[in-house]
Amino acid sequence: MSETLPRSGKLSGGAHLLPIRVYYEDTDAAGLVYYVNYLKFAERGRTEMLRVMGFEQERMRQELGFFFVVRQCTVDYRAAARLDDDLLVMTRLVDAGAATLDVIQEVRRRDAVLAALTFRIAGVGRDGRPSRLPAELRTAIQTLTAAAIPQSPSLSPQNG
Amino acid sequence: MSETLPRSGKLSGGAHLLPIRVYYEDTDAAGLVYYVNYLKFAERGRTEMLRVMGFEQERMRQELGFFFVVRQCTVDYRAAARLDDDLLVMTRLVDAGAATLDVIQEVRRRDAVLAALTFRIAGVGRDGRPSRLPAELRTAIQTLTAAAIPQSPSLSPQNG
Amino acid sequence: MSETLPRSGKLSGGAHLLPIRVYYEDTDAAGLVYYVNYLKFAERGRTEMLRVMGFEQERMRQELGFFFVVRQCTVDYRAAARLDDDLLVMTRLVDAGAATLDVIQEVRRRDAVLAALTFRIAGVGRDGRPSRLPAELRTAIQTLTAAAIPQSPSLSPQNG
Amino acid sequence: MSETLPRSGKLSGGAHLLPIRVYYEDTDAAGLVYYVNYLKFAERGRTEMLRVMGFEQERMRQELGFFFVVRQCTVDYRAAARLDDDLLVMTRLVDAGAATLDVIQEVRRRDAVLAALTFRIAGVGRDGRPSRLPAELRTAIQTLTAAAIPQSPSLSPQNG
Repeated sequence: MSETLPRSGKLSGGAHLLPIRVYYEDTDAAGLVYYVNYLKFAERGRTEMLRVMGFEQERMRQELGFFFVVRQCTVDYRAAARLDDDLLVMTRLVDAGAATLDVIQEVRRRDAVLAALTFRIAGVGRDGRPSRLPAELRTAIQTLTAAAIPQSPSLSPQNG
Repeated sequence: MSETLPRSGKLSGGAHLLPIRVYYEDTDAAGLVYYVNYLKFAERGRTEMLRVMGFEQERMRQELGFFFVVRQCTVDYRAAARLDDDLLVMTRLVDAGAATLDVIQEVRRRDAVLAALTFRIAGVGRDGRPSRLPAELRTAIQTLTAAAIPQSPSLSPQNG
Repeated sequence: MSETLPRSGKLSGGAHLLPIRVYYEDTDAAGLVYYVNYLKFAERGRTEMLRVMGFEQERMRQELGFFFVVRQCTVDYRAAARLDDDLLVMTRLVDAGAATLDVIQEVRRRDAVLAALTFRIAGVGRDGRPSRLPAELRTAIQTLTAAAIPQSPSLSPQNG
Repeated sequence: MSETLPRSGKLSGGAHLLPIRVYYEDTDAAGLVYYVNYLKFAERGRTEMLRVMGFEQERMRQELGFFFVVRQCTVDYRAAARLDDDLLVMTRLVDAGAATLDVIQEVRRRDAVLAALTFRIAGVGRDGRPSRLPAELRTAIQTLTAAAIPQSPSLSPQNG
């Protein structure tokens, strides 16, 4: 399924979908994906969502002195991924403040949600202090969330 | 300060304290500790707490077919650690069910709490299904939590 | 360039080419890709080469009790990759013994070779002892190396 | 054995010895330490050797604009480490040029050498170009290598 997605994933119904392959580096001695690495998968999803929207983080840092830091996250682990699994990371922006983003994400294997994650992300300037999101980014986010189809891809409880 | 602690840390007032040094492998291009790696530090803390209590995870897995998986976690990031920092991971068991453990942890640099984490951990058997904690472990946990001094090391809000 | 490659890369002239994107998780406080992570990139390249040839490692482990371990590696670091870089991992099998594979790899950014790596890989059975490569795999390797075009993709010195 | 070493290890006979504990984060689905992570262990060893000699890398970077990069490495994997293993990283400087260091290292479990590594490290300045080692560091290295006892800790072939 995910084999047909481009490497940076794609936007669909206001959410972003990124395919991710599980390698040895992602697993641990329990034979499963090391639980910490779901956060790496989630960050790849957020990064590619921004890239598809036209915002590369390294360029933003160099040109605007702007970058993102994670302020809070929660992870709900429901099932385990394994070596060679072909996963899908779903990323949805649910709210954008002046200097923060709220994001919900899922790591999926076919129809199963393996992990559900929420992140509060904050914009930071060269001095490490909170910084408003660049105007172009805020506009792009508003366009995206306005286009979002709330029920698909679903985050409803029956997915768990 | 933490230089005087043994490598596996020590129990103090019902909590466990583990010193951790920040290496290049822990940092990212923002010049700080990559936020995902605080979860690695936290797991080292939980692992060493169990070791100091007499429970090595690999031995439990081999002898009892028992191991732990993380079901939920939350992380509140308050300040950033840097290369060469000498950190302290505080781990406290706050509740033990038949097959689960609730743990609160802090990653600290001197008096500052850099990250506050909570974990719900579940016992799992060889078949991957929920498993009751071994009786000796439950007894050890009860002894430890009974000895806990609630206010020290503190997790009160003014630490934030 | 690499955007047009499929996610598992492709075989070309007897070598395999895999596109890899650099994320924050790959970088360190020097602002560059942490040098250890080039070995992770290389393993993704070897894994995808085997997958494109029809050999998934997890399936080989489950069905045949066969897996690979690295016996030796050398890395020559020539230039550094950065956040958001779009890299290409070139993988070429140069020799296959009864129970070993010799592999040369390059991590490239456009025409520049950032790192040149060599690996000796050994087959291992369920008991952890050396194991001959499965016959189908040896046949596939012979077919591939017979088709190899020695000079392209080039590993000649002027690439450095 | 290594439990009695200080957390930053110690110099002994011109070599540095650092104890390292294996955690879940270090392992992979084969149930062993992921082979890439021996390079992380080795870097911790080099970092702590420099620290014990009085040279913290982050301070050198800030005060002198000087840092180290790895130019070449080789790894010979001989046996595998497992979860909860208590390892020892032996680090020995074998040569120091104007702007480079040659280092040999071993990752050991009791008397067994699990991995033997060699590194060529180069000094780099703020501009990323080669930089001579700071004079104090060269002096410290000369003092150390002059004090080295060649045969202990041994790197002789019979260790393999």
